[in-house]
Amino acid sequence: MTEAVEAALPDKYSNMSEWYSEILERAEIIDIRYGVKGFIVYRPFGMMIMKNIIKLYEEELEKTGHKPFLFPVVIPEKNLRMEKEHIKGFEGEVFWVEKGGFTPLEERLALRPTSETAIYPLYALWFSSYKELPFKGYQTCAVYRYETKATRPLLRGREFLWIETHNVYYTEEEARQQTIEDAEIFYRVTTEKLGIPFLHIKREEFDKFPGAVDTYAFDTLLPDGRVLQIGTTHYLGTNFTRVFNVVVHDEEGNLVNPHSTCYGIGLSRILAAILLVHGDEYGAILPFEIAPIQIVIIPIYKTGFSNEEIDKYCIMVKERLVKEGYRVVFDDSEKTPGEKYYYYDLRGVPFRIEVGPREVQTNKVTIFRRDIRRREAVALENLIKYIEDTKSKVLETLRKRAEERLNENIIEVRSRDELIEAYRRGGRRIFKIFFCGRKECADEIKSELDGLETRGMPLKDVEEGPCVWCGEPGHTCYLAKAY
Amino acid sequence: MTEAVEAALPDKYSNMSEWYSEILERAEIIDIRYGVKGFIVYRPFGMMIMKNIIKLYEEELEKTGHKPFLFPVVIPEKNLRMEKEHIKGFEGEVFWVEKGGFTPLEERLALRPTSETAIYPLYALWFSSYKELPFKGYQTCAVYRYETKATRPLLRGREFLWIETHNVYYTEEEARQQTIEDAEIFYRVTTEKLGIPFLHIKREEFDKFPGAVDTYAFDTLLPDGRVLQIGTTHYLGTNFTRVFNVVVHDEEGNLVNPHSTCYGIGLSRILAAILLVHGDEYGAILPFEIAPIQIVIIPIYKTGFSNEEIDKYCIMVKERLVKEGYRVVFDDSEKTPGEKYYYYDLRGVPFRIEVGPREVQTNKVTIFRRDIRRREAVALENLIKYIEDTKSKVLETLRKRAEERLNENIIEVRSRDELIEAYRRGGRRIFKIFFCGRKECADEIKSELDGLETRGMPLKDVEEGPCVWCGEPGHTCYLAKAY
Repeated sequence: MTEAVEAALPDKYSNMSEWYSEILERAEIIDIRYGVKGFIVYRPFGMMIMKNIIKLYEEELEKTGHKPFLFPVVIPEKNLRMEKEHIKGFEGEVFWVEKGGFTPLEERLALRPTSETAIYPLYALWFSSYKELPFKGYQTCAVYRYETKATRPLLRGREFLWIETHNVYYTEEEARQQTIEDAEIFYRVTTEKLGIPFLHIKREEFDKFPGAVDTYAFDTLLPDGRVLQIGTTHYLGTNFTRVFNVVVHDEEGNLVNPHSTCYGIGLSRILAAILLVHGDEYGAILPFEIAPIQIVIIPIYKTGFSNEEIDKYCIMVKERLVKEGYRVVFDDSEKTPGEKYYYYDLRGVPFRIEVGPREVQTNKVTIFRRDIRRREAVALENLIKYIEDTKSKVLETLRKRAEERLNENIIEVRSRDELIEAYRRGGRRIFKIFFCGRKECADEIKSELDGLETRGMPLKDVEEGPCVWCGEPGHTCYLAKAY
Repeated sequence: MTEAVEAALPDKYSNMSEWYSEILERAEIIDIRYGVKGFIVYRPFGMMIMKNIIKLYEEELEKTGHKPFLFPVVIPEKNLRMEKEHIKGFEGEVFWVEKGGFTPLEERLALRPTSETAIYPLYALWFSSYKELPFKGYQTCAVYRYETKATRPLLRGREFLWIETHNVYYTEEEARQQTIEDAEIFYRVTTEKLGIPFLHIKREEFDKFPGAVDTYAFDTLLPDGRVLQIGTTHYLGTNFTRVFNVVVHDEEGNLVNPHSTCYGIGLSRILAAILLVHGDEYGAILPFEIAPIQIVIIPIYKTGFSNEEIDKYCIMVKERLVKEGYRVVFDDSEKTPGEKYYYYDLRGVPFRIEVGPREVQTNKVTIFRRDIRRREAVALENLIKYIEDTKSKVLETLRKRAEERLNENIIEVRSRDELIEAYRRGGRRIFKIFFCGRKECADEIKSELDGLETRGMPLKDVEEGPCVWCGEPGHTCYLAKAY
């Protein structure tokens, strides 16, 4: 291993972009050298994290009554064109399959940018009575968008992984309630299990999902001060059920269009957020539940003490941990302990167990916590209890750090001057303002303040007041730069 | 529920095609009404089975050291064209993405028909020394082939699900050994857990995977007498590592091309095989491990006995089973018991527990086994033990039935006349012959005997003898019609 590779990572706050490139490459998360713009390769370590993330969201979705399904990756052009707003929103960024073998296709096929227009024609066949509703379905898949903006690995790609739900309800009330449940599901995994806080926001009218009545989003804060949309849920009203002729008999036997919602969990971006929000100059720090390696055991050999005895002790420790269901690696390779520390720190392994002569002689282990970078001696008989107790403390530490940083970065401003001054001063990155809701104001702010965007209205503690930009009546709204 | 829906299914042996259509639709496995030829929708019940199947293969792959990864769905045209045999084999059946938004792409992108040409350019970057090998990687994904033959749901589609492994070895010996391990992995899941037997065959030279040195296949027998290839593994030699410049330093520091293998597990076809091989006139019969519903509890209310007490008993039974980790449904809907039996029989639920007054009064349950369609009274205290013991018996029954049928359908013939006579007589469907290995003979047999194909050489008990067709020296080979 060369010196250069062992160097610490750059500071993620002052140089996020470099920190991020380094972690993706050095920890072998993804490979950006595939050679097609916006398409990346999930390397084994990254894919293992991703599979663990997927499992958490899928479990939560299934607990709340969602059933898996899988629709084709291609959508016939005529389907995509059915909902007017929808096609307007996506037309410029759809990949088109135009040929099969040497034969031009009779109808062009879009690679799904999202699956409403694939799914609703089947919903029209599946339901006939209000009694069959609600129907809650999800699929975990990749979607395709021909991004014309600069692409960034995991943050903005032309292929990205997500989970999409498509739920159908008899009543508006139930459908609207689903967008609340979606936020709760998102919180239970993203914040409670992955330690990532987010702003739960209602997007402004002009910023909605194409075809939606209301769009709610989950934005988290990255180290460079930009926010990242990591999930959205949309109340679609009857827009899609009307267009695709999804009808059910109501209680009186009349045919009605049910209400629907869709919900996107941005898996690729969530992986990026976990790396960026929790990581430090030593590398990634992974929440215990999703870490491919949860505990690594490293032998510290000493001359004058039997290596074999240390190995035996390590293997015994490993067996105890494996029996509990933990994902454990015993690294007895020929690398130095320092090289091993570097390697597993980089990969965010939550616990490192070091075993040398002293540990063997005293029936202890030394445990290094990756999150606070502190060692502790733990008696062997308390090992399992220690891990059980501490893994939630690790999560708490990560979560608290991230929540504090998010909160510290929000500043309330009440006028155009205050906004401009606070922006120019720097430091805080999310501005809580009153906003009139007009696209013209949003565009002006964006162009005058280097891309600062209206992100929408919080779901609680909304107040009314004069728009900081134009003075017209407005509501509470966040402003931030975004990916 | 109408009479028509409740009618038994047609006989799967004499009318497989109708039986199959009915089961797919009635049990809500997939939906063939998506509207794009060769593309189907996995409905929730089908997708739940599929996810359970995937889990079994992935677990076995990970146990044998394979790591997950994920490569893009699109492959640049120039990559696909690198290996000459490979592109020749696939060129006619590739879907081409030619436009992004309104812009023609600079280079056409193929939807992956298989991923060698996506993966090897990265392998060229990932490995530099023989010490980094072996590398064993897999991905679970959909692949795309513009089939010009008639498509059939799950059996032959333009989009189908599979697992593909791509392994790299320093030596030929290790790589060849991998094709044996692949067959073992396949056996451990397909036969030992899913009850599906298969012929392990080496395909004839003219029938190999495009670019392979040797191709091994796993063929199972369907009720209509045709065989279905449900998996293949290929020794690729250094064909792909040479073309994509994958090189490593050997022990002496020389640069060499490592050897590689790839292995495809045909998930969509395996789902079809499970339905077709195990099913009966009442519907699907699912192996316990992959059944989305493993046990259904049905209350049998009687006038003069408290419904509530029966429900309470059912819930208590359910809780005991759920505690063991089983997937259990208590169906207290308003349908009649008969309608419920029909519904769960169709969906292949392995165990049905019936609870009426007698069961409550005697602290028993009546358990109906789907595979042999027999009821048994089981004391409540033996319930868990009964399920634990019986679930493997169910699998044994299914497997034995399928193995017997496969073996019964193989007939050895020694001459052209014997072959023609046996074929015309009907009955047995797989012919064990001596075959010279020449494509001309295979083509003649195929055209004279209505599509009978050479499927290749078994892996053991191979003998030599005169080709049944031309009399030239030959080896043991199977002949069958195939999907």
